[in-house]
Amino acid sequence: MPRPIVTLTTDFGEKDYFVASMKGVILSIAPNAEIVDVTHQISAFEIAEAAFVIDQASRCFPKKTIHVVVVDPGVGSARRPILVQSGGQSFIGPDNGVLGMILDRGKCTTRELTTERYFRHPVSQTFHGRDVFAPVAAYLATGTAPSRLGKLIRDAFRPALSRVQQTSKRSWCGAVLTVDRFGNLVTSFRREDFPTLGDSAFDVKIGFETVIQLATSYASMPCGELFAIWGSAGYLEIVMNQGNTAKHLGVGVGAPVDLLVY
Amino acid sequence: MPRPIVTLTTDFGEKDYFVASMKGVILSIAPNAEIVDVTHQISAFEIAEAAFVIDQASRCFPKKTIHVVVVDPGVGSARRPILVQSGGQSFIGPDNGVLGMILDRGKCTTRELTTERYFRHPVSQTFHGRDVFAPVAAYLATGTAPSRLGKLIRDAFRPALSRVQQTSKRSWCGAVLTVDRFGNLVTSFRREDFPTLGDSAFDVKIGFETVIQLATSYASMPCGELFAIWGSAGYLEIVMNQGNTAKHLGVGVGAPVDLLVY
Amino acid sequence: MPRPIVTLTTDFGEKDYFVASMKGVILSIAPNAEIVDVTHQISAFEIAEAAFVIDQASRCFPKKTIHVVVVDPGVGSARRPILVQSGGQSFIGPDNGVLGMILDRGKCTTRELTTERYFRHPVSQTFHGRDVFAPVAAYLATGTAPSRLGKLIRDAFRPALSRVQQTSKRSWCGAVLTVDRFGNLVTSFRREDFPTLGDSAFDVKIGFETVIQLATSYASMPCGELFAIWGSAGYLEIVMNQGNTAKHLGVGVGAPVDLLVY
Repeated sequence: MPRPIVTLTTDFGEKDYFVASMKGVILSIAPNAEIVDVTHQISAFEIAEAAFVIDQASRCFPKKTIHVVVVDPGVGSARRPILVQSGGQSFIGPDNGVLGMILDRGKCTTRELTTERYFRHPVSQTFHGRDVFAPVAAYLATGTAPSRLGKLIRDAFRPALSRVQQTSKRSWCGAVLTVDRFGNLVTSFRREDFPTLGDSAFDVKIGFETVIQLATSYASMPCGELFAIWGSAGYLEIVMNQGNTAKHLGVGVGAPVDLLVY
Repeated sequence: MPRPIVTLTTDFGEKDYFVASMKGVILSIAPNAEIVDVTHQISAFEIAEAAFVIDQASRCFPKKTIHVVVVDPGVGSARRPILVQSGGQSFIGPDNGVLGMILDRGKCTTRELTTERYFRHPVSQTFHGRDVFAPVAAYLATGTAPSRLGKLIRDAFRPALSRVQQTSKRSWCGAVLTVDRFGNLVTSFRREDFPTLGDSAFDVKIGFETVIQLATSYASMPCGELFAIWGSAGYLEIVMNQGNTAKHLGVGVGAPVDLLVY
Repeated sequence: MPRPIVTLTTDFGEKDYFVASMKGVILSIAPNAEIVDVTHQISAFEIAEAAFVIDQASRCFPKKTIHVVVVDPGVGSARRPILVQSGGQSFIGPDNGVLGMILDRGKCTTRELTTERYFRHPVSQTFHGRDVFAPVAAYLATGTAPSRLGKLIRDAFRPALSRVQQTSKRSWCGAVLTVDRFGNLVTSFRREDFPTLGDSAFDVKIGFETVIQLATSYASMPCGELFAIWGSAGYLEIVMNQGNTAKHLGVGVGAPVDLLVY
């Protein structure tokens, strides 16, 4: 029987005891769990960044995987801990938007995590990753029924994380969703919404530059030239071959991106 | 049967082959081991930081867990490799203080690791993590009796890592033990030693600031205000809601912290 | 039966979804795989750095380990994906030199990975780590015969990564192969090629300094003094006890290192 997979996505970094504490709690309850780090380098308190990463990463994991996402500036406040089930996988985190792109997929069931029997006690006011989210994930991994963890809710928080607005018949305004480690700018334009992009001339305006080429691979373009590409996440990316686009343009997450199709 | 857990805490960083070499050695001897990284981002040679992290992290792991801690500026010198057993767990590292907070718990048995049969040969002068600590941990994970690894000792090194001194009837002097990834300052004042803090007025002086409020959660305080909180590690922390306290105050590990209770 | 080990070495960093996607793909195909991170902090596109790290790390892993190495500036171009088998282990990566030091060991069999049935579809143009290398490694872990993955080739790319040139009867010119996390400079001089170094006087010239001492451990030298040592990787290293040599000398990867033996 395969081991239950539990993934972790946090803004805890890796220098402190935080992540290891969560893993110790999980392995104490579910010794058979296979723990996989997605990342602990979400920028501190950056909910949108975490929402994007878990949406992407989870797509490659098998059904039954349990994803724990803890970016939680409101820890200790009234924000609810939730469980979202979507596509056969489970997602656990605070109800602050980190699971927003999962909720946007539709066909979810969402529960508020209220059954304190499945928490680690005493529950601290500052570390729900260890005291609430990790133990609940571990109990789920051991086969605890979701219905035991709390009641269904219908008002989980869904921020407008990845929207594109149409501004005229042939123009749209989006934004930079995330900047990857290579400096590539992932924009909010999705391939499925613009399947024919590149069939006619277009402009992408970002920072002080205008991008007019759509390439099919990095290697097909000269080093140092700016171009667009459909990235592996299914979004339009503004990139350079072996260059750091974010540094070159001086733009980051949230920067506006304007698309005009001729 | 659950797999034996071996955790790793080092100052090796993650860019080199060092950590992977240790994991390869462990899995070659104990293919069934479950290896968990606590952190490899201890500041280079910072024994006190490692001592704090492993003390905290180990509390969440189940009995029988084997913790390897390698922060070892004296590698190749006469400092002894040791095994400390405490609370049903095993701790392996150099006898230079990294296991000091474990030893401070009392009720430990400590052995010097002298049985070279359990080392990887030839033993290099510069990488005992791979050649001494990893293989000994792996043999322990496969069920080797601790008594085979070396003789009991009673003089393991216990530096004064987390002491608080009383300076008058109502004042104490402590220090910053560690700075976490969010910039929160963890001080050496322990909750169990000051259970009534906050019942009457108090001052905490640190850097050029005086802190007079004790909060129960980050979210209960306005952004940008400095306050004290009992952290998830059981120590008094000086923090800001969504701000970096260490940068704000310009203080770091070892900075004095003065407590006055009125 | 021990679980099949799959190691990962990339320049993807740890903040994005890239590494987790590869792990999800592997666990979807080979739920029993034991995934070990070697490092994801290879400098972006630095093939020589990756070649050195996997050569070192792999030496500590058991036979049958499968190593995936993805540093791939030419992703989407015509460069071939390859499988190298050496010493009972398998190495998977692009044919761009990242496996050069494995190929230099001799006694390898090398195959071009052409059987698209073992890829993840659709194969993106920008993320072969997820779509080609991870699934092929996973199928290998489940017992797929290498001969099914593609045909033998004899012309895999072997760059001159770690060469030393003799410049006169008693002098040689090498280079800095890598800089470790402590700032130690690993040079291309191998212990097996200079077994008697230190028996007579010698000079190592690097940057504006000349090193004349060969020590057997860091701890045997005073802090702040520059010296040479045979490192744990079997190469001559230029180091300081508890100091950062790379910063002190202002040199990095590729810097020339001249050895003169009197």
